[in-house]
Amino acid sequence: MLKGFNVPLTAKGKSTLNPLPPWYYSADFLSIEFWTEPSAAAALLPPGLDPDRAANGHAGAYFYDWQFSGNDEEYLDPARYQYREFFVLLDALYQGKPVSYCPYIFVDNDAALARGWAQGYPKRIAQVFQTRYHAATGKAGPPLAAGSKFAGSLTCAGQRLAEGLVTLKDPVKDTSHLIDRPVLGLLHFPRLAADKQDHPAVHELVQNVPHDVKIEQAWIGDGSLTLPVCRGEEVSDLAPVRCGKGIRASLSYVVDDHKTLKDLRR
Amino acid sequence: MLKGFNVPLTAKGKSTLNPLPPWYYSADFLSIEFWTEPSAAAALLPPGLDPDRAANGHAGAYFYDWQFSGNDEEYLDPARYQYREFFVLLDALYQGKPVSYCPYIFVDNDAALARGWAQGYPKRIAQVFQTRYHAATGKAGPPLAAGSKFAGSLTCAGQRLAEGLVTLKDPVKDTSHLIDRPVLGLLHFPRLAADKQDHPAVHELVQNVPHDVKIEQAWIGDGSLTLPVCRGEEVSDLAPVRCGKGIRASLSYVVDDHKTLKDLRR
Amino acid sequence: MLKGFNVPLTAKGKSTLNPLPPWYYSADFLSIEFWTEPSAAAALLPPGLDPDRAANGHAGAYFYDWQFSGNDEEYLDPARYQYREFFVLLDALYQGKPVSYCPYIFVDNDAALARGWAQGYPKRIAQVFQTRYHAATGKAGPPLAAGSKFAGSLTCAGQRLAEGLVTLKDPVKDTSHLIDRPVLGLLHFPRLAADKQDHPAVHELVQNVPHDVKIEQAWIGDGSLTLPVCRGEEVSDLAPVRCGKGIRASLSYVVDDHKTLKDLRR
Amino acid sequence: MLKGFNVPLTAKGKSTLNPLPPWYYSADFLSIEFWTEPSAAAALLPPGLDPDRAANGHAGAYFYDWQFSGNDEEYLDPARYQYREFFVLLDALYQGKPVSYCPYIFVDNDAALARGWAQGYPKRIAQVFQTRYHAATGKAGPPLAAGSKFAGSLTCAGQRLAEGLVTLKDPVKDTSHLIDRPVLGLLHFPRLAADKQDHPAVHELVQNVPHDVKIEQAWIGDGSLTLPVCRGEEVSDLAPVRCGKGIRASLSYVVDDHKTLKDLRR
Repeated sequence: MLKGFNVPLTAKGKSTLNPLPPWYYSADFLSIEFWTEPSAAAALLPPGLDPDRAANGHAGAYFYDWQFSGNDEEYLDPARYQYREFFVLLDALYQGKPVSYCPYIFVDNDAALARGWAQGYPKRIAQVFQTRYHAATGKAGPPLAAGSKFAGSLTCAGQRLAEGLVTLKDPVKDTSHLIDRPVLGLLHFPRLAADKQDHPAVHELVQNVPHDVKIEQAWIGDGSLTLPVCRGEEVSDLAPVRCGKGIRASLSYVVDDHKTLKDLRR
Repeated sequence: MLKGFNVPLTAKGKSTLNPLPPWYYSADFLSIEFWTEPSAAAALLPPGLDPDRAANGHAGAYFYDWQFSGNDEEYLDPARYQYREFFVLLDALYQGKPVSYCPYIFVDNDAALARGWAQGYPKRIAQVFQTRYHAATGKAGPPLAAGSKFAGSLTCAGQRLAEGLVTLKDPVKDTSHLIDRPVLGLLHFPRLAADKQDHPAVHELVQNVPHDVKIEQAWIGDGSLTLPVCRGEEVSDLAPVRCGKGIRASLSYVVDDHKTLKDLRR
Repeated sequence: MLKGFNVPLTAKGKSTLNPLPPWYYSADFLSIEFWTEPSAAAALLPPGLDPDRAANGHAGAYFYDWQFSGNDEEYLDPARYQYREFFVLLDALYQGKPVSYCPYIFVDNDAALARGWAQGYPKRIAQVFQTRYHAATGKAGPPLAAGSKFAGSLTCAGQRLAEGLVTLKDPVKDTSHLIDRPVLGLLHFPRLAADKQDHPAVHELVQNVPHDVKIEQAWIGDGSLTLPVCRGEEVSDLAPVRCGKGIRASLSYVVDDHKTLKDLRR
Repeated sequence: MLKGFNVPLTAKGKSTLNPLPPWYYSADFLSIEFWTEPSAAAALLPPGLDPDRAANGHAGAYFYDWQFSGNDEEYLDPARYQYREFFVLLDALYQGKPVSYCPYIFVDNDAALARGWAQGYPKRIAQVFQTRYHAATGKAGPPLAAGSKFAGSLTCAGQRLAEGLVTLKDPVKDTSHLIDRPVLGLLHFPRLAADKQDHPAVHELVQNVPHDVKIEQAWIGDGSLTLPVCRGEEVSDLAPVRCGKGIRASLSYVVDDHKTLKDLRR
């Protein structure tokens, strides 16, 4: 019996990209609210999702510094499991209910990419950075205070795909509304066989169901985001028409399950 | 209609990790023949494959400097598509016929990882290097000549997993026997749903069917390989008992199809 | 007039690796006290420094997650200026007074390397990681509390050179003794001219004089460290005979000056 | 006696970034001739160099895939010593004689950076790629033949700073004119002491004197280059007004000496 959640499957299950769930996460993040052309957002939605007309192109961009662990103290091997991430969420409707859909996501770690693919997150490898908060503050380390600035950037295949900035104004007293929509994705695994390249092995609308979500140290303020035009890339089609709130906070949660909403194969 | 072979699937199909096949490849490579403990090789074989007793643990280790292209001149964007690779092939039997099985493979590029997963190659991201041949030779650039040495190394998640060396002796006149066994893999895509973590979405024994294989500038000589013991890794279970021939050559081929030999799902 | 502190010097001074001082720093760090063979420590000291016999091989290993800024908000360009670092400090005596000497240091960023070279820190490029503290804790994010574990690792040129672990016991009430010895280095810039390769352009015993040092959130406990033997490297000559305290804290300071203690050129 | 050419200087001299010269080099390269605004080129010249008015802004951009070795088979440790490079050379005059001056250069390896700094090459760390030639050609591997295309790209601190393309037309019969001007640089090592930040320790106009230069497999054709505008960077001030010839070839040489033409310190 070969062991492992992801490839490689091996005799002892040590080489696998990821241990079996549960998967534990802890992070600092920046989020930036923005509005794109509604038609650009609509063009990225898979079958089963409808544009959220009322949202008028409303979306979010997110920079995360993540720490991951399974049940075997994987957080003590940060070279293998710690990672940074950028993603976009688009407002959409599923059966008339408001959801978020993730069309783009980038990480700097292969274990995170592999977990993401199993969750319907279309991850590519990239370089992601965000300004960090350290308890010892100063000109190089902004405090959690009004006026402090935190920046993020994304570079993929050598091109700068996104830059963001959050300027803090106020602490967030009630964090219960910060994550308000379920996050949906497109679970997709293609077929290479010549007669099946149009018939993926897996092609499903899925929903992520994290639990034990904790948000700490949340501050809210203004956000700004740019998505520059780059050769061979189309993230820039979502370029902001205007930007809204910016948030800087810490988050932790647990992932051990997943929901398929709809099989999209023909 | 969303477009792309791999995720992300998008409106225009530019952001996808890979274009639709055909996929074109060109490379320089080092290969090192070795024998491992037969039981260590056998322990890595998936259902459907039998140990090749006569092979007595015979295996190969490979360092590749690859260039990739689809039909849209992707080789002119080397930051996105050029890559380096290390893999191991184990002698095995499929329905009594000699084949090679790939239990471990590492690349430094996400497009290559994504193609590999669709081919049954269990790729992880790593740092792979090999000594190169340049036409202007010297003490830093070994000629293609008897006595020249070419080295390779693999580092994954910060640990050195493999080191290899090929010392040239003779040019290879007939390259038709250099790639003699079909290469099989385990196509695997897991399920995260709590009740399906033991029931992968895809779990198949597959065969790669490249064509238009060309081998040029092949030299043969002695090979040596080490697979050091590393924490959290089990490649070292295949540590060589002894090493055999080493080869240094160039190779190109085309991939546009794939065969499923057996669905292994219960 | 060409502008810049480090190369490249250019018309506008934007491309330089670093702006002119003052340089601002903010970090989270792990430190691990250890004792090495006194002769191994003594063998690394430059002229002008004496072994600290009473210290009996006492040394420290340090993992830092740094944020840097000049006066132009460089902390908002983390892709260019944020970095991670590992270094070793050896107890030594300068004119009979206790000091720390830095024989080895590694960073993952070229701006940090360039500043380091101007400070007498012999930096190489490497991959450095440490377990991070995020305010939203859990199994992937250890709290600042007794029993919490934080790990660090260093990989250079593909080889794992160091691994460390700190297990917290108690908060540190008085942090004023955490940094007690001045840090000295060997400022060295070689000459390539054939007749001067033994006569470096710069070869000085120097002292770092940071100011406005702040330490926050300090916890103390047990430390452990390994420095594995690696080909072509000699950090392992300092392998711990035993380990002592471990610390996890945040630190910030300012650098705008530097002292030459002694010109060591013949 | 501490040993090593570059830092770190240690008891055995194994950890140093580079061994003592002689230094051996072997490479494949792309070069692209271009003309920039003469005033932009003139603005980058250090004291001692004059603009080459007749050159009218003539310059070259170069992508190199390098292999390095000292006398101890360093080319067999490609993870530590193999590297890729991009640089610009500007036509200039030194005492009325035509020379090339290097204002910008980027590598992906710290040993190369350290050697470069000792040669007056103002290296930063970056990601550099070029399309490669492999003997087994195809759609992913262009042959050395008329019409073949080879591309290069440079990304530094997350921003794409340069893209180049060479289209082959003819083999070069006489390669003796391909490298026709001596290459000069600005050797610069700053001082951090508060009262000396305007008085660098080393500030010299220098000349590189490689020998045993060999050029092989040279093809010439058309070149094109773009230097996009990027935040915090000024390479784009040299943006081509027009481009000229492109070359693709292999080169090897030896470096064991260096000339100081003029001490530029005040």
